Amino acid sequence: MKAIVQTEEKNTASLELQDVPTPTLKPGEVLVEVKAAGVNRADLLQTQGNYPVPPGASEILGLECAGVIADPGDTDRQKGEEVACLLTGGGYAEFVAVPEGQLMPIPEGFSFVEAASIVEVACTVWSNIGMLAGLKEGQTFLVHGGAGGIGTFAVQMGKAMGAKVAVTTGSPEKLATCQQLGADILINYREEDFAEVLKNKVDVILDIIGAKYLGQNVKALAKDGHMVTIGLQGGVKGELNLGLLLAKRGTISATALRGRDDADKARIVAATIEAIWPMLADGRITPHIDHTLPLADAAKALKALEDGTVTGKLVLEV
Amino acid sequence: MKAIVQTEEKNTASLELQDVPTPTLKPGEVLVEVKAAGVNRADLLQTQGNYPVPPGASEILGLECAGVIADPGDTDRQKGEEVACLLTGGGYAEFVAVPEGQLMPIPEGFSFVEAASIVEVACTVWSNIGMLAGLKEGQTFLVHGGAGGIGTFAVQMGKAMGAKVAVTTGSPEKLATCQQLGADILINYREEDFAEVLKNKVDVILDIIGAKYLGQNVKALAKDGHMVTIGLQGGVKGELNLGLLLAKRGTISATALRGRDDADKARIVAATIEAIWPMLADGRITPHIDHTLPLADAAKALKALEDGTVTGKLVLEV
Repeated sequence: MKAIVQTEEKNTASLELQDVPTPTLKPGEVLVEVKAAGVNRADLLQTQGNYPVPPGASEILGLECAGVIADPGDTDRQKGEEVACLLTGGGYAEFVAVPEGQLMPIPEGFSFVEAASIVEVACTVWSNIGMLAGLKEGQTFLVHGGAGGIGTFAVQMGKAMGAKVAVTTGSPEKLATCQQLGADILINYREEDFAEVLKNKVDVILDIIGAKYLGQNVKALAKDGHMVTIGLQGGVKGELNLGLLLAKRGTISATALRGRDDADKARIVAATIEAIWPMLADGRITPHIDHTLPLADAAKALKALEDGTVTGKLVLEV
Repeated sequence: MKAIVQTEEKNTASLELQDVPTPTLKPGEVLVEVKAAGVNRADLLQTQGNYPVPPGASEILGLECAGVIADPGDTDRQKGEEVACLLTGGGYAEFVAVPEGQLMPIPEGFSFVEAASIVEVACTVWSNIGMLAGLKEGQTFLVHGGAGGIGTFAVQMGKAMGAKVAVTTGSPEKLATCQQLGADILINYREEDFAEVLKNKVDVILDIIGAKYLGQNVKALAKDGHMVTIGLQGGVKGELNLGLLLAKRGTISATALRGRDDADKARIVAATIEAIWPMLADGRITPHIDHTLPLADAAKALKALEDGTVTGKLVLEV
């Protein structure tokens, strides 16, 4: 089969479409013919050598895809079934092996491209904001990077859950996107300190910045607030004021989806289908795709992500 | 009535037994004649000016007591009923006003002194370790200050819940106390680095140290581990490695019981009675009282706590 292969270590530009062996199936896996593969920041980090591949996972990039079951292996699935897939790797390819617990139905009315754009973000955001932080109706929910792939999803999900949604982002255009998606409080981080605007007001924070925002996030938390860090774009080590956190009875979590074991992923996939798929079916959450590219242009896609010019998601078409 | 009054700001030694007005009851409160009042580190901090009294709470020290209902107010309680009480303040006195939701039965077979020694610690430890961190059978549970008032309770509760319990404390005598209570892993922090001994192994941490242990606690956390800080004896601000926390999918909470509103306290009191009172009734958790003193000796009690010579709890008898 054809797949994207990195020919030079730490060089994102060195991605090439090459011939590689088609994956062999382990027990409980199905072989999926990939029609579309979502592009994630973790893919970029992996090409830069900053996101180690979990033991046993495919070395090929790609954490989500949509396609058709080509071989159901030892499962009860049917050949030809259309599926969306949460992957531990391997999506930038013509075929990928997927544990059955990571298969999802294509959301009602979605194309392969749209489905491939939503899997990783839906599982990531729901597992953190719904399952872990337990966002509730009427609470205030702060989304950093509101116009990005994660942000555009999280803003809509927050509104669908009845939360008041605040966003930070870096340009008037991106703020306008967030407003169209329903965000209630719009903060341009180049002009305002979100911690001042939202001091003691935020019940749940979805953070992709890490160290750089740690102090401000704790300041923004309300009583019993919960911040969840899922990205470290602003560095790893920061000062934590435990006294302030204690006065607020606050909680800080930091998580990643990829390193979870199959059982944990299956649990998250099932919960995400139950909570999020109805929101996709009735349009409360719509996919936001910046543009699609052919699989061979994977390097170009990651370059665009790195340049910060992307609003919503990039998807590779196979 | 007689109560302990602080005559000089920030001077713990200036506590004196004086005549003060008996509390008047608000709706939903009962008047309790105090027989015994537990002594807590928060009381010491309050005398030092480091623990502000929540708005509306009694200025008198004392976060827990046991006694007899002297006036049921507008509630359905009976005069003469023996109760243990979680207080927002006011326990170092002959009488205290208590919201009905903060009354607990005297645990089966317990004296007033024993009951007064267990209320605050039971509610604190259960709300954090049972309700918030969700400690489960078979998990590893680290208790800092294992021989203190909170520690002696937490070690026994951890064992009763089927956890493997690790403790840190500062002397062979205190370690021996922890061992008698059932602790499985004994660490003298003066001789060993607990983060090295327990690296990546601890599912739940009960922390009373704060900043000084933050880095080591994160190092000790296992995958999906949860540390809960309820004390800041080692300072307030520390460096947090969010990258390490993310790699472990870890969670850090910091909480305090006193500032919670009445509804929240009532919720915790009810859950604690359900989970912990059976463990007290059948002896899986026993009270550990260092010694008792008359109410008039409150200053002496807090001095002993400050000196770090106390194993288990101090209780004032009225």
